[in-house]
Amino acid sequence: MNDLYPAERLRRVAAAVRDHGLGALLLTPGPDLRYVTGYDAKQLERLTCLAVPADGDPFLVVPLLELRAAQASPAGELGVELVAWGETEDPFGVISGRLGNPGSLGLSDRMWAMFSLRFADAFPGARHVLASAVLSPIRVRKSAAEVEALREAGAAIDRVHARVPGWLRPGVTEREVGTKIAEAILAEGHVSADFTIVGSGPNAASPHHEVSDRILGAGDVVVVDIGGTMPSGYCSDCTRTYAVGTPPTEFTEYYGVLRVAQDAACEAAAPGVPAQTVDAAARDVIAAAGYGEWFIHRTGHGIGLESHEEPYIVSGNATPLEPGMAFSVEPGIYPGPHGARIEDIVVCTEGGRERLNNAPRDLVIV
Amino acid sequence: MNDLYPAERLRRVAAAVRDHGLGALLLTPGPDLRYVTGYDAKQLERLTCLAVPADGDPFLVVPLLELRAAQASPAGELGVELVAWGETEDPFGVISGRLGNPGSLGLSDRMWAMFSLRFADAFPGARHVLASAVLSPIRVRKSAAEVEALREAGAAIDRVHARVPGWLRPGVTEREVGTKIAEAILAEGHVSADFTIVGSGPNAASPHHEVSDRILGAGDVVVVDIGGTMPSGYCSDCTRTYAVGTPPTEFTEYYGVLRVAQDAACEAAAPGVPAQTVDAAARDVIAAAGYGEWFIHRTGHGIGLESHEEPYIVSGNATPLEPGMAFSVEPGIYPGPHGARIEDIVVCTEGGRERLNNAPRDLVIV
Repeated sequence: MNDLYPAERLRRVAAAVRDHGLGALLLTPGPDLRYVTGYDAKQLERLTCLAVPADGDPFLVVPLLELRAAQASPAGELGVELVAWGETEDPFGVISGRLGNPGSLGLSDRMWAMFSLRFADAFPGARHVLASAVLSPIRVRKSAAEVEALREAGAAIDRVHARVPGWLRPGVTEREVGTKIAEAILAEGHVSADFTIVGSGPNAASPHHEVSDRILGAGDVVVVDIGGTMPSGYCSDCTRTYAVGTPPTEFTEYYGVLRVAQDAACEAAAPGVPAQTVDAAARDVIAAAGYGEWFIHRTGHGIGLESHEEPYIVSGNATPLEPGMAFSVEPGIYPGPHGARIEDIVVCTEGGRERLNNAPRDLVIV
Repeated sequence: MNDLYPAERLRRVAAAVRDHGLGALLLTPGPDLRYVTGYDAKQLERLTCLAVPADGDPFLVVPLLELRAAQASPAGELGVELVAWGETEDPFGVISGRLGNPGSLGLSDRMWAMFSLRFADAFPGARHVLASAVLSPIRVRKSAAEVEALREAGAAIDRVHARVPGWLRPGVTEREVGTKIAEAILAEGHVSADFTIVGSGPNAASPHHEVSDRILGAGDVVVVDIGGTMPSGYCSDCTRTYAVGTPPTEFTEYYGVLRVAQDAACEAAAPGVPAQTVDAAARDVIAAAGYGEWFIHRTGHGIGLESHEEPYIVSGNATPLEPGMAFSVEPGIYPGPHGARIEDIVVCTEGGRERLNNAPRDLVIV
């Protein structure tokens, strides 16, 4: 076994299933399954499912034609029984036959309805809860190996940002820039380019704009929010805002405010500090400068095997930060007809915090 | 509106909701939402959901920071009310407040449990069924515009296969070949490379093997099963088997059998023919030649906005084919220590069938 997916993790999860009073956990392909077993199984219409009963041994149900892939994955080294089902068998019946009447089931948060409704039929009367009730408290505290994987992801996306100014010039479209970025995300070591937001001009004011055929012009501000997944499974996510020539004066003013706010929020992160306090640290700076109404989203989200996971850095989340928690700090100001966002991934450490992105944060004018 | 996502589709879906006696359809981001509205929304932890009630007007609930993206998408031209929710609001309550007590809900097949369980709480006592009960009979018959989109996808992946022989030589790893292929899938017009299976030597006998660090050697057989998603949203999927130098004699024998079987299955496809008859056409040829036990999967799957969807070409599926149905025909023989598969996408036409992949099917020895 390797440091990223240690075998004892499955035993910790089984203990947590018992502690939560659940009958069993059912994990279909996705980040929960990968976290517990290291198996990066594809989401397919054929059921793959790890069952972790409160009592008894875990087992992994796989389609027959995925059996060799499952055996070759880290799950093959866990000592977990692999139960293969053939093309005309009913895998839900296989699982219910083994688990009997578990009373309550924890379903992976991203389990498709096509599976959860079949489990509802296969286990009549069983209560369904989300697996995150069990797994999130474990997943949210990253191990040293996980932090290192996130550090590598941060360095990879920083290398992409270092190349972005070379692609921004009047006359190119957002889509053309996005294509270059997606290629660079792969070239710099990711296995997938998960999102490439290139928001220029008025599109910079739409936080989740992706790319369009809009042509960049002189004086445009461009929000570039990009990320991918590394071979380890861990994700990158980093935003920088660029200007194509001299931006409008009012933009330069609020960009300075945003720069201070993002620093304040990063510096606020430390063990014991509630997640919402980090959000407030950014929001207070922006509101005091008169831009509060234009900061229309939370300050951040956790990151790991998912690009968005616990802990959310949002008003109302009183969860105290702990060493190993990793999350984005990404305040934005979007008054239109332009906008700006600055985002780093930050990990809470014993002594405070470490930023995992280090591309320059001062406005880059190309 | 465009031909791919016509406005009348939503009216047809609303009528089908009534015909099926459902109270409402709830579609979260994914192929169902894209099919009905043209909106290629991201799967996020923040709820985006189209509600199509049996009575009353459909509405699309979106996170506030996705509002501009939703407005700019084809969904913005449908005349559907967009209901934005703020970062601290409860979107499930918003939907239940508008729908009242619908009795039964059709959930998109890929809806995450994190949403379906919240809908269960927001609509106590409502029965959940899969949206595919309503949508699949509509989606399974592709329009002329959809067939054209699939034809473009087929031509794009054929262009990738035309380049594959140039990358196969002793000394390279499967992973290196896979990286070249993934880049070519994008370069040839897809927006994402969804899978790149490069199964060499014994890995050719594992149908869903992806890539490994195995080094290709002389005499290796290599199964290359690749596909991506086009800007239209429609998917490609095509398998060819290559040999690096002269393959083993026993391989050449069963490859010839497979070649005949794949042709037989393609030729069997026609209006009114049950899906399972196409499966049997391939299986009978392979079994008659004595390789039946090594054909361990169904013959194919439907394809459209999903790379796997209805109709499944499998024993037990008596659904008669209709013009516009599109599906893979991909028998394989995997005796080990090598294996082979040949796959084309086929669309049922008024007069019979059309293959959408046209890369050479005879064994390519490089």
